Amino acid sequence: MRIETELTRMLDIRVPLMLAPMAGVSGGALAAAVTGAGGLGIIGGGYGDRAWLQTEMAAAGNARIGIGFIAWSLEKKPELLDLALDRAPEAIFLSFGDFAIFSDKVKRTASKLIAQVQTVAQARQALDAGADIIVAQGTEAGGHGGKRATLPLVPAIVDIAGTVPVVAAGGIADGRGLAAALMLGASGILCGTAFFASHEALTHPNAKTAALGGSGDDTIRSSVIDIARSLPWPGTWNVRTLRNDFVERWAGDTNQLRDAAGTEGERYIQAAAAGDMSVAATIVGEGIDLVRTAQPAAKIVEEMERGAIGLISQAERMLVGR
Amino acid sequence: MRIETELTRMLDIRVPLMLAPMAGVSGGALAAAVTGAGGLGIIGGGYGDRAWLQTEMAAAGNARIGIGFIAWSLEKKPELLDLALDRAPEAIFLSFGDFAIFSDKVKRTASKLIAQVQTVAQARQALDAGADIIVAQGTEAGGHGGKRATLPLVPAIVDIAGTVPVVAAGGIADGRGLAAALMLGASGILCGTAFFASHEALTHPNAKTAALGGSGDDTIRSSVIDIARSLPWPGTWNVRTLRNDFVERWAGDTNQLRDAAGTEGERYIQAAAAGDMSVAATIVGEGIDLVRTAQPAAKIVEEMERGAIGLISQAERMLVGR
Ligand SMILES: Cc1cc2nc3c(=O)[nH]c(=O)nc-3n(C[C@H](O)[C@H](O)[C@H](O)COP(=O)(O)O)c2cc1C
Ligand SMILES: Cc1cc2nc3c(=O)[nH]c(=O)nc-3n(C[C@H](O)[C@H](O)[C@H](O)COP(=O)(O)O)c2cc1C
Repeated sequence: MRIETELTRMLDIRVPLMLAPMAGVSGGALAAAVTGAGGLGIIGGGYGDRAWLQTEMAAAGNARIGIGFIAWSLEKKPELLDLALDRAPEAIFLSFGDFAIFSDKVKRTASKLIAQVQTVAQARQALDAGADIIVAQGTEAGGHGGKRATLPLVPAIVDIAGTVPVVAAGGIADGRGLAAALMLGASGILCGTAFFASHEALTHPNAKTAALGGSGDDTIRSSVIDIARSLPWPGTWNVRTLRNDFVERWAGDTNQLRDAAGTEGERYIQAAAAGDMSVAATIVGEGIDLVRTAQPAAKIVEEMERGAIGLISQAERMLVGR
Repeated sequence: MRIETELTRMLDIRVPLMLAPMAGVSGGALAAAVTGAGGLGIIGGGYGDRAWLQTEMAAAGNARIGIGFIAWSLEKKPELLDLALDRAPEAIFLSFGDFAIFSDKVKRTASKLIAQVQTVAQARQALDAGADIIVAQGTEAGGHGGKRATLPLVPAIVDIAGTVPVVAAGGIADGRGLAAALMLGASGILCGTAFFASHEALTHPNAKTAALGGSGDDTIRSSVIDIARSLPWPGTWNVRTLRNDFVERWAGDTNQLRDAAGTEGERYIQAAAAGDMSVAATIVGEGIDLVRTAQPAAKIVEEMERGAIGLISQAERMLVGR
């Protein structure tokens, strides 16, 4: 038994679940594992490191995968889109920027264009740009994102999307979330946090440990780590992480951090490499309460699928009378 | 056919839906209408105006209703809890403060104690205080609230609540949201925004019009209207409203607003009375995209129930194969 939706039909997958293209985390092995388990794995092209992307595309072997880019960053290295398209990926996943710039090029290929949005207004732009799939991402998501929450955002976008499938992202980490997303009218889900500590994730081991002990109560959105890393993120988006000493120190003081970005940036990069999680960020979302063990990605996909099928097949038992 | 859950059994109601105790909005007529339609209406005791509460309890007639209080405010007028309990309400609903202070008194009566929380940590406190029902309120909610979003908060609280029913609040305004909440493990929902523009709501007509034209994209959490009204809200919570001139002016400048609270407060109060919605706040949540017409409360309850029953009874059609 499996769940069939517009998304599973369009992408020819068995489970309506996509791996989020997490920068530095979703490499080829993780993407291939999610695809192998029936979903669609998406490599996290992030800020566009050509060598990294080539390595990870190779690591995915001949698995059917998608490739994700941060749109404002891809504008600076548009040649990486050609590199990705040369592999004939199932989909190009774009988020955080202008979709229209890249739309024509993607749509001349067999790859689907997936656009991740954070508001109803952005969903309209993505639809106008010809996106094949809209990912409605709520603020509870790990990593970069906006202000609106998943539960009310998804149906509002479904109502304007016509026949374009809408995928829910943000705060979904088990079968309950998958079943809930389907009730909201979504055709599937995109998960990052659920896979952050998975065996195949490229996450630092200390970050995995921190994630597995964290709670959604302890996450915060801020621009601290972007400023520290001197990444020119537009103000529309910031990044959800677990709170730690570094974020607590600077979240209320971002102007001073900007002045200190030289030394603090160096400190941050060293901490990230060393796995010092009091400085380096554990980049997970509010769904982290639901992730308590490190597992192979395939197991995570299976459990989410099984949980959702169980809930859906037993839902009618909630109904009484005639 | 109806939906049966732990909540409907405990409260002996037909529809697993409660009206949020919206201060100044959820009066006796609205509460009675929601109860009449099968849910549980809850009067919004707000900041504790004795005469208002007496009037609205009377307006509810002999309908089975609950009565809600803002806990930090009730601490200053604890005698209002006696006034409420004298009516033998189905439930006392507390939010935003210490539940333990009032728990014993409520639990000596037949009224259930409903505690609305915004984090997993607060849910633990509410369970320790002996709450009969936990409302897990997400940040997308209209009115006062916290930072965590509904979709990941509800299952995280379900996982620690044992046999205590958990109700989802924040961003739910149609049958899709009700069905999704049930999949998350909630026993029902609490809705404010969905009823803000209902016929029976005590909302100013201009605020109803503003709400029906608003989008979740245009809401914001801030302390602006609390500072303007000189309400001593603890910093843990702020209030979600539609953006308007007044909020845009002051949201980034709350210290200066504090200095100007005398004149700005007067201006705010006059605008609220006159229905000048460029100054007075339209207090709705991100679910407002889903609310496009002014309807009687009973119609709203019926449509949500019918929508959810439809989704639940047809959910199995998503499953294919054996
Ligand atoms: C560690 C991490 C890194 C992420 N990096 C990216 C990224 O590079 N590009 C992107 O579009 N989204 C990125 N995201 C956001 C995801 O695309 C997705 O929206 C999010 O993970 C969904 O919410 P969830 O974390 O609650 O599952 C990242 C998320 C995480 C947790
Ligand atoms: C206009 C308005 C006033 C509110 N006033 C109160 C209140 O006085 N006490 C309270 O506990 N909650 C209050 N709330 C919050 C609700 O209890 C509830 O959590 C919220 O409405 C649920 O989210 P929703 O608005 O998306 O349905 C208010 C909400 C609104 C929209």
